[in-house]
Amino acid sequence: MKKIEILDTTLRDGAQSEGISFSLRDKLNIIERLSRFGVDFIEAGNPASNPKDIEVFEKAKLLNLGHSQLVAFGSTSRKDNSPETDNGINALLAAGTKFVSVFGKSHASQVGSVLRVTLDENLSMIRRTIEHLKGRGREVIFDAEHFFDGYKSDKEYALSVLKTAKKAGAINLILCDTNGGCFPDEITEITKAVTRCLSPSNCDIIGIHCHDDTGCAVANTIAAVKSSATHVQGTFIGIGERCGNANLSAVIPNLQLKLGYLCVEPKNMEGITETARFIGEVANVRLPRNMPYVGGAAFSHKGGMHIDGVMKSPESFEHIPPEKVGNERNLLLSEMSGRGTLLQKLNAIGRNLTIMKNDPIVEKLTNRVKELEHKGYQFEAADASFELLVLQEMGLFKPHFKILEYNIVSSLSKACKAKVRISAGEYTEETEASGNGPVNALDMALRKALEVFYPELSAVKLSDYKVRIINGDDNTAAITRVLMESGFYSGGNSGTTWTTVGAGDNIISASMVALVDSLEYALQKFHNFL
Amino acid sequence: MKKIEILDTTLRDGAQSEGISFSLRDKLNIIERLSRFGVDFIEAGNPASNPKDIEVFEKAKLLNLGHSQLVAFGSTSRKDNSPETDNGINALLAAGTKFVSVFGKSHASQVGSVLRVTLDENLSMIRRTIEHLKGRGREVIFDAEHFFDGYKSDKEYALSVLKTAKKAGAINLILCDTNGGCFPDEITEITKAVTRCLSPSNCDIIGIHCHDDTGCAVANTIAAVKSSATHVQGTFIGIGERCGNANLSAVIPNLQLKLGYLCVEPKNMEGITETARFIGEVANVRLPRNMPYVGGAAFSHKGGMHIDGVMKSPESFEHIPPEKVGNERNLLLSEMSGRGTLLQKLNAIGRNLTIMKNDPIVEKLTNRVKELEHKGYQFEAADASFELLVLQEMGLFKPHFKILEYNIVSSLSKACKAKVRISAGEYTEETEASGNGPVNALDMALRKALEVFYPELSAVKLSDYKVRIINGDDNTAAITRVLMESGFYSGGNSGTTWTTVGAGDNIISASMVALVDSLEYALQKFHNFL
Repeated sequence: MKKIEILDTTLRDGAQSEGISFSLRDKLNIIERLSRFGVDFIEAGNPASNPKDIEVFEKAKLLNLGHSQLVAFGSTSRKDNSPETDNGINALLAAGTKFVSVFGKSHASQVGSVLRVTLDENLSMIRRTIEHLKGRGREVIFDAEHFFDGYKSDKEYALSVLKTAKKAGAINLILCDTNGGCFPDEITEITKAVTRCLSPSNCDIIGIHCHDDTGCAVANTIAAVKSSATHVQGTFIGIGERCGNANLSAVIPNLQLKLGYLCVEPKNMEGITETARFIGEVANVRLPRNMPYVGGAAFSHKGGMHIDGVMKSPESFEHIPPEKVGNERNLLLSEMSGRGTLLQKLNAIGRNLTIMKNDPIVEKLTNRVKELEHKGYQFEAADASFELLVLQEMGLFKPHFKILEYNIVSSLSKACKAKVRISAGEYTEETEASGNGPVNALDMALRKALEVFYPELSAVKLSDYKVRIINGDDNTAAITRVLMESGFYSGGNSGTTWTTVGAGDNIISASMVALVDSLEYALQKFHNFL
Repeated sequence: MKKIEILDTTLRDGAQSEGISFSLRDKLNIIERLSRFGVDFIEAGNPASNPKDIEVFEKAKLLNLGHSQLVAFGSTSRKDNSPETDNGINALLAAGTKFVSVFGKSHASQVGSVLRVTLDENLSMIRRTIEHLKGRGREVIFDAEHFFDGYKSDKEYALSVLKTAKKAGAINLILCDTNGGCFPDEITEITKAVTRCLSPSNCDIIGIHCHDDTGCAVANTIAAVKSSATHVQGTFIGIGERCGNANLSAVIPNLQLKLGYLCVEPKNMEGITETARFIGEVANVRLPRNMPYVGGAAFSHKGGMHIDGVMKSPESFEHIPPEKVGNERNLLLSEMSGRGTLLQKLNAIGRNLTIMKNDPIVEKLTNRVKELEHKGYQFEAADASFELLVLQEMGLFKPHFKILEYNIVSSLSKACKAKVRISAGEYTEETEASGNGPVNALDMALRKALEVFYPELSAVKLSDYKVRIINGDDNTAAITRVLMESGFYSGGNSGTTWTTVGAGDNIISASMVALVDSLEYALQKFHNFL
């Protein structure tokens, strides 16, 4: 298998996304996780533009990074500076990494309009910078900024930039689609032309760096690899300036599982879903459920014919088996699906039960689910509520607590207040709390009461809350459906999450149902009933 | 310019996404908006699998859809049925649309394993279904399910399916990458082969339908068009089974603005951002900020060198000018909404005002909108709140009433109760009401008080209510955004509707803001201030 090097730039190009800001701890966590997954290069910062990044490199060197190499990123020296006296170059060297990335312009007209130097001065800046870094023992990855646009407008100059960098000793020449405007056929044609120009025997030096402004960054990256590039840059969850960089969590399985290249150790591939979700958590980015390969819904099937098809022949609606990327098939219980789906879900819960299609529990559950759906419940995304329902219908459910009464008051002039009275076994407890809104106040009051009996609940955190109004027709009231996502959190790290549902004509009572299910589910987990 | 037909399947394939469920009103709103943007075909439902969709088609026919055509979707008849007695086919005909889509399998081995009929029976089912539909005056779009996988495993059979459908009279043959596993070079090669097989003079019949499981749906769609397809299917914001369908909000500008094809009236193109965001709101889908072309961050620049570059030479970091798609450059000093959009919106209100770009009101409003957006408001889908804001900032707003205090109580055991005290001119009024939930109770109490002064409000009805939780970062509380749609109703008929917005950390106070705006807007309309 042909090896393709992977460079992840989540911490450099990714950090330039709107809304992203990484702490030192975040960066170290991400570096550690990327190395565990086994990417070749981790571009961890730009020490010239962000002096705090020096500390990242210092601390990161203390980690065990396996075969992953840290890369510091910076620009060529400025026009009037020799590399020796250039602050940017000195900051880059101060990072103390064996590998450095430097970018230089390869678009002739931008050399004048943006850099404001002559074409020859630009070549000389590139050459002197690379030679200087080489002289200090660095391996230099050269990013040819605006390469594809540059090639389209002045081919000769764009190629002369590559030749200059290569001659100066760069180990990689990265072709950048900086403004993200290219399509795959252009990438193919230009990458092939570059290969011809450098001679095929030298083409293992070519890398690709794409942005997603046309929605084609993944396809463009694949096109470059198919045209000889052997080094790929991107960010693990696709974050980056504007529309983001090529999403490595799609690029890597595309290359390795579908096209026969080698990007990472084959045994690491099934860690890709977990790695992507971990980085999403640390970056505080909500990964779209429909992200290829790693998204929560990437292997979800809803239409009845799809569910039927995937059961009979998985490849009909799944281009790869989900377990190859550590993800899961998910048959959505919805109005469109029947018993088959339910049976699958039931057996997937895995309480050492094997339930057959004609087991009376299947019919009982089917009817109960239909009845609840009719009231506005939806179990599609609420596995925890569904599992509790299964326990109930099988007569195996023992609740840890019961709500006897609650009361919330909200007004224009005062904070929202909630009172809750619960029982747990033979005891009762009554508590009161204020909150930002009714659900927050109820959550606070309920936990205050429950933690008297179950202090372990302090590790459970509400992580997302969604509300959907389902319109009734003219004669019935609208129904409110609430989905609540919760998780175990300890020491800042997130672990398992689960989702519960509540529905009804009152948003407060619907939220209370989801909240009670969420905490009950946690207790069932803690006490090994689930 | 070569015309490419656009078929949007948000309401059919999109409705098969996890977590999506459209009400009748949602569907009609989306149909209306898609037709205003000018897509050629709107695939609005599958009447056989969802009988409620028949009502969608009935109601949609009353809308003015310009040149857009509604399409009903369904399957070929079942093996043992003649089309005349097939329930699915009869449901499809009952939709009463001129255009219908029917899908049939084009993958030889799945015909056996999933459909469980012989290869010839499958061809005959396709032929008889299309002929029957043609005989009833329908124009038939034929979706060749699993076409690319089918072609790779049994080329001859896959092509024979297309030939059968064409001979039976289908106006379009749609090549479907049903499990989303293809790459652009495969799409190119196979689409070209199909063209050769059908003869180039017949190739304007070819369409493309891609899914995003490799992250290449947009690129695959473009590849097919470059290889002769003239009909494109996708969903406006990329929703759909699993990883979603080809995202039309990227496909359309790619084809029309960058590659010289004609998809929609050129003057409509700058409505694409607003259309995508509107559909996102109605579907209750959070559009990723980094979506190509239409995302809030699609033209956001954060890195210092990027901001410098884009100021000196926009094309350095912007592959197209953002205004071509009705989006805006964002230098990440602030949230969003620059002057241009605001000015457009302002002049669209049409109170016989013409406001110029340098009018001080533009700056004042820009600042006010930014401030409110920062608090979680969003005016994209809340025109009524925006109009009230304009009146306020221009000093033309005279409120009809004021809320002095309200109070709601909700508990496990009793109905939800609201008290409201308002002033109208020199009078005050205090009322109390019970309701299904807090918002309903507040709405009832508020109307009871207001109708003392403004009996005309009895014609105003709350028609939809949506809640979105916008996560804050670690240091801030989550914000709740409420969108409320209201309308004038008389004698059971609905007329004009309008939407208002409220936001804050408490769902009840946010709902109250939207409710007050909604009723105030109605009063401003009744009294001709708007």
